[in-house]
Amino acid sequence: MQYTDLSTPIRTIMTPGPVEVDPRVLRAMSNPIVGQFDPSFTTIMNEVMEMLRSLFQTKNQWAFPVDGTSRSGIEAVLCSVIEPDDTVLVPIFGRFGYLLTEICERYGANVHTIECEWGTIFKQETIKQKIEEIKPKIVAVVHGETSTGCMQPIDQIGKTCRKHDSLLIVDAVASIGGVEIKVDEWMIDAMIGGTQKCISVPSGLAPITYNNRVEAVIQARKKVERGISTEEDQQLELARKHHFIKSNYFDISMLQDYWGPRRLNHHTEATSMLYALREGLRIILEEGLDQRFRRHLYHEQALITGLEAMGLTLFGEAQSKLPTVTCVEVPDGIDPEFVRSTLLDQFGIEIAKSFGPLEGKIWRIGTMGYSCRKENILFVLGALEAVLLQHGASIHAGKATVAALEYYTEQAATSVLSV
Amino acid sequence: MQYTDLSTPIRTIMTPGPVEVDPRVLRAMSNPIVGQFDPSFTTIMNEVMEMLRSLFQTKNQWAFPVDGTSRSGIEAVLCSVIEPDDTVLVPIFGRFGYLLTEICERYGANVHTIECEWGTIFKQETIKQKIEEIKPKIVAVVHGETSTGCMQPIDQIGKTCRKHDSLLIVDAVASIGGVEIKVDEWMIDAMIGGTQKCISVPSGLAPITYNNRVEAVIQARKKVERGISTEEDQQLELARKHHFIKSNYFDISMLQDYWGPRRLNHHTEATSMLYALREGLRIILEEGLDQRFRRHLYHEQALITGLEAMGLTLFGEAQSKLPTVTCVEVPDGIDPEFVRSTLLDQFGIEIAKSFGPLEGKIWRIGTMGYSCRKENILFVLGALEAVLLQHGASIHAGKATVAALEYYTEQAATSVLSV
Repeated sequence: MQYTDLSTPIRTIMTPGPVEVDPRVLRAMSNPIVGQFDPSFTTIMNEVMEMLRSLFQTKNQWAFPVDGTSRSGIEAVLCSVIEPDDTVLVPIFGRFGYLLTEICERYGANVHTIECEWGTIFKQETIKQKIEEIKPKIVAVVHGETSTGCMQPIDQIGKTCRKHDSLLIVDAVASIGGVEIKVDEWMIDAMIGGTQKCISVPSGLAPITYNNRVEAVIQARKKVERGISTEEDQQLELARKHHFIKSNYFDISMLQDYWGPRRLNHHTEATSMLYALREGLRIILEEGLDQRFRRHLYHEQALITGLEAMGLTLFGEAQSKLPTVTCVEVPDGIDPEFVRSTLLDQFGIEIAKSFGPLEGKIWRIGTMGYSCRKENILFVLGALEAVLLQHGASIHAGKATVAALEYYTEQAATSVLSV
Repeated sequence: MQYTDLSTPIRTIMTPGPVEVDPRVLRAMSNPIVGQFDPSFTTIMNEVMEMLRSLFQTKNQWAFPVDGTSRSGIEAVLCSVIEPDDTVLVPIFGRFGYLLTEICERYGANVHTIECEWGTIFKQETIKQKIEEIKPKIVAVVHGETSTGCMQPIDQIGKTCRKHDSLLIVDAVASIGGVEIKVDEWMIDAMIGGTQKCISVPSGLAPITYNNRVEAVIQARKKVERGISTEEDQQLELARKHHFIKSNYFDISMLQDYWGPRRLNHHTEATSMLYALREGLRIILEEGLDQRFRRHLYHEQALITGLEAMGLTLFGEAQSKLPTVTCVEVPDGIDPEFVRSTLLDQFGIEIAKSFGPLEGKIWRIGTMGYSCRKENILFVLGALEAVLLQHGASIHAGKATVAALEYYTEQAATSVLSV
């Protein structure tokens, strides 16, 4: 069989990821390969660590990507700290809360959950009370829940965790790079980001950061591979009182020896993906974090303005909304998948469905990273209106794009934001 | 701080990976992102599966990459089949045999090993006898051991495994795409490849394949994530008698639901890396497997001819040699790392050191994939000679490159190989 040249269509990707990628990032991946211990490559590794610290707003020494998709970072952090029968608290407000419980359970944790209705979030006070009550070793919480488009405030939880010597671990896959998160100020002990969402780098790396409290737990479980370990390593291992980490690939004590000054071989770092991450982070810092967060809010507002002008109903509490994902209820009598496939086939626009109890009930429109641009907002509003009208939905015709356009015009006249 | 544009040096990479990548593969990664369930992307997923089957010489339904570096594929396969206290046999003839034992131990296996001196391999009869003796559930063996440059023949082991209902799992990270491996004919139950070596695609994916015997073990441990599982899934799970798989990320029963017709969301496939893998595989199949394997042998021979003409001694038994890695003993009185850094700094050439007992004793020169080209062989021989002479090694001056050149000239006159 003959395979043709790779020829991918141009899509307008308005999902919660993977989203469009700046052409500069795509080009960066075309740089030739250099060896993993080539000084020119270890320089790139160090630069990426430095830039991740800026993005995460942390002074943590450890900030580097795990080589895998977002959930590889989540699993790496959780399995490196969880020992069998450790108590973990997971507040669940959507699908990805369940993912956290699932990973914790697989590694033998004693998982406690609190749940709230999808589309709502917890009062921080509720989470804090539960921490006071069960004094877990770990509190694992999703920050931006893409399945419901909700964002859980977490700035007050860290202090309670410190009081009970609990570790606060945050899944910021869907929010990092689009919404402010202050790792140090909010006393987050470990955090995991995703590349293919607001960072706008292709899927395949999971940037993480963790502080000294987490490092102490990990170091107590340290293991160095036979075949490359020294006698000193082996003696330290024998003296170890804690369970070793179940996974080799996700053993952060080993990743740390690779990313740190010891440069101990573990895996072979994903060269081209690291080029992409470096360029993606460089673009983020060039734009500036504040400006970037404002840009996400700015286009989110344009999208909401258009959707409401069309007469559509947003899903979820307005005050709990994740600025990078907008959930819209499917109007009565409309086949949600038929709308999605028409958008894709006719307009080249992708929007997302949801999961579990929300499947078939809502669409999810992402406004993330490089996809979060004026022309994309205007295009998706016009396209969605046309498709809904064609399918006989009772919406207000001719309103959505005009409303967004007026919003943009007004903002341009009054705002200092350069977007 | 200002970060400059990414500007990587051009290297001649003669290590056992990561190696140079065909410019066509580098360009493929610059294609724009498409969504993970976009039909244009699932078509690419299916094409990659089809091409992997050709490369692996298998009719297995399941052949797809795990999203991570090579050892992620090894861990995914091992942790998906190993249940606590399962007996695993690992024949060790270098560092990566230890890696297999280490992963198996972490997942609770009862690991039996046989070891032979680094630089030698086992008679297949020895491995077969051990299988007869301990009747392991799993035999995990490295095919090409890059740490010693040795290759373990494995074509006769599968039959004995079938007799005792053992699963034969092969780590072919360093050999796949450079050396013939016949998954079906050799009765290999699961195999793991690496992208950054003879496949010549950047590090970051680990192609695996497995047959129905392995699938049966995995399906008995099946789990579908809460939040996306159906009632039927949950009932099947309750009826399950086996331990679930410890890792979520590496749970092959879930990966299979993502790569198979059910297309159940697990991770977000690494878009650009999959573009690269598709192009890399396309180039391999365009060259033809037979031609590709001959090309690797052809340039290996040129390299050996040159090294021996220089008066250097190869490490390891000649009959056990892995054609894609050539190990050379460091001459007396020469600082091996000084030679390596001079090669890198002055010539832009990278060769490798080794690990553990061989560190400082040998250099390893890779001839893999796109790096395995005539000009690279000639360049590395000339450069190595110059550096060794400059450092006062007693070698034969002016012989190496000429010997290789003569080899190439003779071969060109007599051979049908187009290289």
